[in-house]
Amino acid sequence: MKRYRVLILPKKGLLDPEGRAIKEMLVENGYPVKDVQVGKVLEITVDGDVNVDQMVQKFLVNPLIEEYLIE
Amino acid sequence: MKRYRVLILPKKGLLDPEGRAIKEMLVENGYPVKDVQVGKVLEITVDGDVNVDQMVQKFLVNPLIEEYLIE
Repeated sequence: MKRYRVLILPKKGLLDPEGRAIKEMLVENGYPVKDVQVGKVLEITVDGDVNVDQMVQKFLVNPLIEEYLIE
Repeated sequence: MKRYRVLILPKKGLLDPEGRAIKEMLVENGYPVKDVQVGKVLEITVDGDVNVDQMVQKFLVNPLIEEYLIE
């Protein structure tokens, strides 16, 4: 069994309304927050050999609007 | 400016319908996936000293159903 962590974030410069809302809420509560980006994290456990990069590109990410990182 | 990455995941054992749906889709497409957990990642940029752990606990995480990790 292997576990991979996949981070999927909106591409820089794209609208991220959830991130903006969280940022504004934190600023209103007194925190000096400049930016918040919200994305998804997937923790994927596989049993066997998997081309994780290919799987993520093919099924889990929209490359027009998202970028990803596999750890 | 400092940037923190906050990972928020459902607690082990709790229902995660989105993770389950993704897992089943990957299995149907031939990948030997045993488990998928879906959570959120926040990339937070701050300008100044912030007790990030306190901020996350107070405003961003529901400790009944979520666990978190700050990087």
